[in-house]
Amino acid sequence: MTSPPPAPYPGVYADRGVFVCFEGGEGSGKSTQSRLLREHLEQHGHEVVLTFEPGDTPVGQQVRRIVLSPETGALAPKAEVLLYAADKAEHVDTVVRPALERGAVVVTDRYVDSTLAYQGAGRTLPAHEVEQIGRWATGDLRPHLTVLLDLEPEQGLGRFAERDRIEGESLGFHQRVRAAFLDLARLDDAHYLVLDARRPVDEIAAAVRDRVTPLLAQAGPS
Amino acid sequence: MTSPPPAPYPGVYADRGVFVCFEGGEGSGKSTQSRLLREHLEQHGHEVVLTFEPGDTPVGQQVRRIVLSPETGALAPKAEVLLYAADKAEHVDTVVRPALERGAVVVTDRYVDSTLAYQGAGRTLPAHEVEQIGRWATGDLRPHLTVLLDLEPEQGLGRFAERDRIEGESLGFHQRVRAAFLDLARLDDAHYLVLDARRPVDEIAAAVRDRVTPLLAQAGPS
Repeated sequence: MTSPPPAPYPGVYADRGVFVCFEGGEGSGKSTQSRLLREHLEQHGHEVVLTFEPGDTPVGQQVRRIVLSPETGALAPKAEVLLYAADKAEHVDTVVRPALERGAVVVTDRYVDSTLAYQGAGRTLPAHEVEQIGRWATGDLRPHLTVLLDLEPEQGLGRFAERDRIEGESLGFHQRVRAAFLDLARLDDAHYLVLDARRPVDEIAAAVRDRVTPLLAQAGPS
Repeated sequence: MTSPPPAPYPGVYADRGVFVCFEGGEGSGKSTQSRLLREHLEQHGHEVVLTFEPGDTPVGQQVRRIVLSPETGALAPKAEVLLYAADKAEHVDTVVRPALERGAVVVTDRYVDSTLAYQGAGRTLPAHEVEQIGRWATGDLRPHLTVLLDLEPEQGLGRFAERDRIEGESLGFHQRVRAAFLDLARLDDAHYLVLDARRPVDEIAAAVRDRVTPLLAQAGPS
């Protein structure tokens, strides 16, 4: 994050259901860990909604196509922020909030922090402006826990032969993104778990379960 | 507009080129008058860029399809605001501002006021929040002149057999939209011209020309 300091967004935490988010750079293992967490929770009788941003709604799919397709080419930085925010508004309104209200565990692959990291730190728009848009879009609904799978960009990016419009950005861009994720986590220990994404998959999964288990008291009956 | 009062947005006016906007409800004659103004100005040697929102950029076309297609169905109100704002950000960045910078007259069919009227007053989101998003998207760039072609919704809507997702809204919606347009104009006489859209086409065109002519001093050489 850069100056000026972000406005004091207090955040809203659902009082029913559990909201867990995986964040991190490309290739950090977010989708693998999301699936492992779902399996574990379902085995214990919880309803789990596994979702992702951008694109896990009919409108979001169309937005995802615009923001990620290399054919889109240059996109005004503010337009990019607003498209991602539109996806989030639709996602929270039609997927996340209804699931939490019925007591489900929502596990999302990316959320507002990705906007702050990629469009705030990665592009060069004022971070507090990007944050304001993202917070407004989501009604400032926050995950009870955000798991940051931290990885040096060189390692994550190396895994893919073909990259989309965002992945194809410079190494410097992805380094700023990583630093932004770490800064967000450092500011709020109570709601973040930072894990080295190079650790063995099952070790990471166990560490995630240990942090999620105490939260399940406010999930629906198991 | 409803309380709380909008924040004091001062507005940014380009110091080169001329920015003219036509606003009004469905069927009020905006596109006819835009074309007549262009013809007049081109006959006098000015470069004119005739444009519209939403959709007059490659990205905007895709956004327009999402927001106007009846197939989209329900759309979270904030998602709608953010999609329109994304269109505006791209439009200002790639069409409006470059044209003004080279001294052209930009004539747009709809701009930020449409967002304030349709998504602010028409939906039921706080007007000042919708305004903040629209102002941020455009860098608060304002038209030197906004021509409001005022018409009772009953009359404008009657002209079309088929209506898109917005046109298909209730009469009450379109009445709130009309009132919002009139309120915006009332607050800023210096930058608005309100005309009764039922007047003969050539009378309206003449009234528009009379207000645009004094602005042309800062357009490129004719």
